[in-house]
Amino acid sequence: MQGLLNDWRRTNYAKETTPEIAGEEVTIMGWVHEIRDLGGIIFVIIRDVTGRIQITAPSKKVNAEILEELRAFRKESVVAIKGTVQEAGKAPNGVEIIPKETKILNLANQPLPMDPTEKVKAEIDTRLDSRFLDLRKENVSAIFKIKGQMFHTIRDFFYENGFYEINTPKLVASATEGGTELFPITYFEKEAFLGQSPQLYKQMMMGSGMDKVFEIGQIFRAEEHDTLRHLNEAVSIDAEASFMDDEDVMKILNDMLVNVINDINENCSAELEILGHELPEVDGDFPHVCYDEAVDIINSKGVEMDWGEDLSRAAEKALGDTMGGFYFLTKWPAAIKPFYVMPFEDDDKYAHAFDLMYNNLELSSGATRVHQYDLLVKQIEERDLNPDGFGSYLKAFEYGMPPHAGWGVGADRLTMVLTGSENIRECVLFPRDRHRLTP
Amino acid sequence: MQGLLNDWRRTNYAKETTPEIAGEEVTIMGWVHEIRDLGGIIFVIIRDVTGRIQITAPSKKVNAEILEELRAFRKESVVAIKGTVQEAGKAPNGVEIIPKETKILNLANQPLPMDPTEKVKAEIDTRLDSRFLDLRKENVSAIFKIKGQMFHTIRDFFYENGFYEINTPKLVASATEGGTELFPITYFEKEAFLGQSPQLYKQMMMGSGMDKVFEIGQIFRAEEHDTLRHLNEAVSIDAEASFMDDEDVMKILNDMLVNVINDINENCSAELEILGHELPEVDGDFPHVCYDEAVDIINSKGVEMDWGEDLSRAAEKALGDTMGGFYFLTKWPAAIKPFYVMPFEDDDKYAHAFDLMYNNLELSSGATRVHQYDLLVKQIEERDLNPDGFGSYLKAFEYGMPPHAGWGVGADRLTMVLTGSENIRECVLFPRDRHRLTP
Repeated sequence: MQGLLNDWRRTNYAKETTPEIAGEEVTIMGWVHEIRDLGGIIFVIIRDVTGRIQITAPSKKVNAEILEELRAFRKESVVAIKGTVQEAGKAPNGVEIIPKETKILNLANQPLPMDPTEKVKAEIDTRLDSRFLDLRKENVSAIFKIKGQMFHTIRDFFYENGFYEINTPKLVASATEGGTELFPITYFEKEAFLGQSPQLYKQMMMGSGMDKVFEIGQIFRAEEHDTLRHLNEAVSIDAEASFMDDEDVMKILNDMLVNVINDINENCSAELEILGHELPEVDGDFPHVCYDEAVDIINSKGVEMDWGEDLSRAAEKALGDTMGGFYFLTKWPAAIKPFYVMPFEDDDKYAHAFDLMYNNLELSSGATRVHQYDLLVKQIEERDLNPDGFGSYLKAFEYGMPPHAGWGVGADRLTMVLTGSENIRECVLFPRDRHRLTP
Repeated sequence: MQGLLNDWRRTNYAKETTPEIAGEEVTIMGWVHEIRDLGGIIFVIIRDVTGRIQITAPSKKVNAEILEELRAFRKESVVAIKGTVQEAGKAPNGVEIIPKETKILNLANQPLPMDPTEKVKAEIDTRLDSRFLDLRKENVSAIFKIKGQMFHTIRDFFYENGFYEINTPKLVASATEGGTELFPITYFEKEAFLGQSPQLYKQMMMGSGMDKVFEIGQIFRAEEHDTLRHLNEAVSIDAEASFMDDEDVMKILNDMLVNVINDINENCSAELEILGHELPEVDGDFPHVCYDEAVDIINSKGVEMDWGEDLSRAAEKALGDTMGGFYFLTKWPAAIKPFYVMPFEDDDKYAHAFDLMYNNLELSSGATRVHQYDLLVKQIEERDLNPDGFGSYLKAFEYGMPPHAGWGVGADRLTMVLTGSENIRECVLFPRDRHRLTP
């Protein structure tokens, strides 16, 4: 059988192959990034997840059989090379490998549907159709390395702050927020929906006494958006904490993002450099602007907006231009927020709700939640929803629900900010939108 | 408005309230676990996520107003108490709190649908219907604290071993493994399905050069099982690694589980004690038994099984009785494994596939994958599937797919082993089966 690994194993990644190990024999495995056959000498650049390494085969030093094998290499094929490390000032990492044995693990067909080494930018749809090739570009994989670090830091932050990880069901019997933008599913003989948010579940968990919980998981929204900021399947970072209010959980979110940015600066500097992206400076607390002030700012920029309306795209842009960076938008009109949001005690026109914005992009929504059964039922009814549809959720409020607050962050949107991406599709491996269901 | 937190904040969890801080003033928040009113003295036990703490109110020391407030407490209500810590040998943590101020944050209705403090075991269905109350029992929340530690350790293990975290879509255009047991979904004007496994996506990621990836995410299977080991929505821990074979990834899985068990023993000893569960001893390598040997063992136990069949439940039990603990079942007949599994080079009756078992419970399946396009197409056709249905998957094998191997572990089943649970429903917060879609 062709292309088997058998007893070959990689001994060194490209990055680990440095002048310090000159003279050692190594086995390198990766993709053929470049071949230059100058007759008397053949250069092959091999690429792996850590970087690139040069194979140098001068016809005087390397036997004819190896030279023939190298000549059979094709760009983007998967190969393995055993050879000796030698210092070489101008090559990647300052070394080259003089090959002793080679193996083709998988030949790439030609031509490629897109060239991962070419400088010309392909269209996003072409790239997504061949995402596996697109990801071979270091400026594409850099995004997902940064996204991985983001999740890593966020989970560590939750662990350190006493949050328990939970997994809530994605198959649900009814709409989370009474919305109509749900994907219906046939669940045996019943109708079910895909969860648009873990909201009701994380609140029920507050009634369990587990105090502080988080979930990082998929959410599904059947919205017919066609923008650079929306997808129909997304990853949401959700947190909920008992005995806390909106101010407390804004502080948690603020601190978490400071950690994320510091960790990415520390651990992903190479990826940021590849992307030509500098992370926003953050230290201490993000500014807070209340909704009333925001309306004034937006109007003063010539964008019309009445009190009580949600922010239009133009309004978000006007506000983002003034505020810049991360900021909390607080004290929203209660009527445009969901039923589970706590109104102000002294003026129930306003709610203890906030959004976290970055420039003109909404990253997170959060709030103090209503924990009193009667008020919750009243707010459900005021929104023309039927409390009977919320049976098992409401039950949790009858038998000892603590005061609580929480938020959800769009992980893919946060990745846009962290990587300087303009299109959310850049930040999702296999995005799902109105028109795209493959690969 | 009733029950607001206002400027009250918890200063101490129960566990943090120890004789070392006697004399200090603290604010405790939690659930009323027990009230004993002896006339001249009232004892209230408050429960929070860390444990229990006693409030002691002797009528001589505490004013009448506070005594009245304490008498208004009801079991499982949410309350806050400000008071002074005092040593008390026999009370939980060796302390009691003399109350100075109290606040009822939410009164629990009576009677409760189930009593979380009662010793009598309720039926699983009653418990799941009121899961938020069920979770107030320490032997129930202990399961999810252990499950959280399991995920924590597993992710740390992946990070330390150079695996990148990925998120793959749960909305897919076609069946992962050609199976028919899929939940159909209406995706705008198209038909789609819920992903039954990230298998094809993690393999495509191997073609991206990202080398080693993991995903912890939901999977959905429309199987009409009604057992203690199956659910229709589950969490799967998936890993895939390039330039590795089945032996390499079995070693990774083995090492990961050793880490998980060590970490749980170290960090969850209180939870294990509550559950009365001792974790299986593991050190070094789990035993391997090949399929042929397994058939002999099973037949020798009086359970009939022909070569080439999958293991029946009776066969799993017979094998589990002999092997015990964790063991790998290797070298399966190729014909009963999926198309993406690599056959043996010298005898393609067998495949480089393995299961990880614990006693008679299958925890994981894995394999060396086929990375050669032609062989993959052949194996798809041999299973009466149409290669045209695997377009974007197959494309990744044409342009430089490295040799690779991987596995998936059922996270909920692994939690059964780690917590000594007999029913998988014990290990999922809100389980989904043929009959249950709520809460």
